[in-house]
Amino acid sequence: MERDFVGKKEFPIKCEIGRGLEGAIVNNTQIGYVNGKEGRLCYRGISIEDLAKYSSFEETAYLLLFGKLPKRDELNGFKEKLKVSRSIPQGIVEMIKILPKDTHSMNLLMSAVAALAGYDKESQKVTLESEKEVAIRIISKIATVTAAISRIKKGKEVIEPREDLSHAENLVYMITGEVDESRPSLRGVDEEISKAIDMALILHADHGMSGSTFTCMVIHASLSDFYATIAGGIGSLKGPLHGGANERVIKMLQEIGTPSNVEEWYGRERKLHHKIPGFGHRIYHAHDPRARIFKEYCHRVATTEEIKNLLAIAERLEEVEIRELGEKKGIFPNVDFYSGIVYKALGLETSLFTPLFAVSRVAGWTARVLEYMPENRIFRPRAEYYGPLKQEYIPMEKR
Amino acid sequence: MERDFVGKKEFPIKCEIGRGLEGAIVNNTQIGYVNGKEGRLCYRGISIEDLAKYSSFEETAYLLLFGKLPKRDELNGFKEKLKVSRSIPQGIVEMIKILPKDTHSMNLLMSAVAALAGYDKESQKVTLESEKEVAIRIISKIATVTAAISRIKKGKEVIEPREDLSHAENLVYMITGEVDESRPSLRGVDEEISKAIDMALILHADHGMSGSTFTCMVIHASLSDFYATIAGGIGSLKGPLHGGANERVIKMLQEIGTPSNVEEWYGRERKLHHKIPGFGHRIYHAHDPRARIFKEYCHRVATTEEIKNLLAIAERLEEVEIRELGEKKGIFPNVDFYSGIVYKALGLETSLFTPLFAVSRVAGWTARVLEYMPENRIFRPRAEYYGPLKQEYIPMEKR
Repeated sequence: MERDFVGKKEFPIKCEIGRGLEGAIVNNTQIGYVNGKEGRLCYRGISIEDLAKYSSFEETAYLLLFGKLPKRDELNGFKEKLKVSRSIPQGIVEMIKILPKDTHSMNLLMSAVAALAGYDKESQKVTLESEKEVAIRIISKIATVTAAISRIKKGKEVIEPREDLSHAENLVYMITGEVDESRPSLRGVDEEISKAIDMALILHADHGMSGSTFTCMVIHASLSDFYATIAGGIGSLKGPLHGGANERVIKMLQEIGTPSNVEEWYGRERKLHHKIPGFGHRIYHAHDPRARIFKEYCHRVATTEEIKNLLAIAERLEEVEIRELGEKKGIFPNVDFYSGIVYKALGLETSLFTPLFAVSRVAGWTARVLEYMPENRIFRPRAEYYGPLKQEYIPMEKR
Repeated sequence: MERDFVGKKEFPIKCEIGRGLEGAIVNNTQIGYVNGKEGRLCYRGISIEDLAKYSSFEETAYLLLFGKLPKRDELNGFKEKLKVSRSIPQGIVEMIKILPKDTHSMNLLMSAVAALAGYDKESQKVTLESEKEVAIRIISKIATVTAAISRIKKGKEVIEPREDLSHAENLVYMITGEVDESRPSLRGVDEEISKAIDMALILHADHGMSGSTFTCMVIHASLSDFYATIAGGIGSLKGPLHGGANERVIKMLQEIGTPSNVEEWYGRERKLHHKIPGFGHRIYHAHDPRARIFKEYCHRVATTEEIKNLLAIAERLEEVEIRELGEKKGIFPNVDFYSGIVYKALGLETSLFTPLFAVSRVAGWTARVLEYMPENRIFRPRAEYYGPLKQEYIPMEKR
């Protein structure tokens, strides 16, 4: 019989720990659930498929933070808080401008988010009540900072946020700066792009105890402030083993060139024992449900020959990989395999891909940090010392 | 029989994990060893007492990073690399100036260190060889950034580093800006202060898998760059449960006022179940060896009536606490109990205490990150989900 409810575990818990703390249990959570064997992802028990179909990023963030789907006035109140928090201080824009133009976007984002603490005195209190409000401000502002970084790197003017748009619409508006007055229903912001970004923000908002989520929890557990905490998560997400795989997928698809090259290219890479980006996940040994949603979306946004070709290569590669490794080893396309194609179709530069991941995941980061606060305990695992226990201090002349 | 050598453990390892990952094993290490029961701390097998007595911060950092005490030419080469890396780009100084003056020093330090990546293109490579050099540059520059923050916060001119001074001397010089030409042997920098800072840098350089060290390892394991990694460690150290307790100790000693008030004050605090800052440590259940060294040093630097009084209060409080809790519960003064008095005697502002901790601990952070690299695996422990596994998405109108 299938279980429909799981109970809380009591600490201490007996575990078998592999390298990278595989198998170690950090805490009990109600926020998200990943079933790698069945390929299921839920936020607060609700399937990611349903959320992608019916929800918005704002509603999903509320769900993650507060544990339930909001009633209309609750959602409106939450949206309002996000809207009024959108603008960022001129000092943050100035500091991004001062730093070298070719600084990695994620280093800029990390630096700017850490600095934002200086403008939010409430952030230094670190109580559960004040942190809930700070979390909403960070979720809001991280989008504005990301757009500012994108604009400054391209040598363009930074665009002030608008309060009449949704989170995704405003993000797209601040990045592109384009207003199409012929589409008054969307207040000028491209509907298709905004919808795709909204969906991408929902799909990336939480995913268990990922490296960046864990980083946030470890930093905040010393009762450090929320800006320092989220800045740390951004630093972790920056690593190519965590965020950034979708950039490499696009590069790979471009390198392959055409669908007919896939078989030969794949055979060569396998012989060289190269890891194929966008496949496999520590957690999933079945289809990543997010990859399926992105794949479906790819077909909607693939309107140019270039994108259609990339998608055709990707689908051919997926077939070959599943035939060779998929069923045997449980290696399937992950979320990064198709997300890059969607972003590329939307005209976004690849250096924005990982910052966009942060703009979404900040919802899960903040939700999980807040959840841990009432039972907070600083993280202090052990490194196992090996070697001599007593070494003499040898003076310089005798070395 | 006492062991004098311990072997390496093989993963997977069976553990019993408490909250805060207590008891979980992260990796095997040769860098440092804390024996909480005996109150012993070693770096690479050498006791902290010997290092405080005979070594310098530069030599200790070399020992931590490269696993052995350097020969003379090795130490000179290492010192030279630190010296030529001291200056920081004008852009970093400018960004600190732009941010609000009352921004927490640790938020500024975190932000500046993350931004430094933009000026060090080598840092984006993330190979073991390149990272060793980047580590040395960060150890050097973090001192300059800390001094710059201190100067800017006080509205004073930032002082350029000098290459003719040791790491500790130059740090003191960049903070105080004072040159006393009557002491030519030290090229004008106060000898007593520099010596005390050098010792403090040695004592704080490594301490097992502390929260900040663990943060660095988690961030870097996704192969993020070293600046983002160290910035994350700074964010963790900022929390009052990790760094910063020595600030609270000073405040407490000032509040108590005189040694004769200690008994009454202590009794009242105990009744209110308040935690006394500067006592107890998750790891030590015996005397913290670093506290003993700092205590001894307190007597050397306590020359004013104010500091003598603070020290007398501290010693009285230590007696009372040990009588009441020490032997029974294994709660003794920790490193933070006496370190604040030393810093205060040196005339350092309290907001510099935690940044100084980072200037030292960066040696341990970088050493442990480099040690983990050859066997790198991303950290991905688990949060244990509890609650309903399948929740319906309820449309807005039915909530």
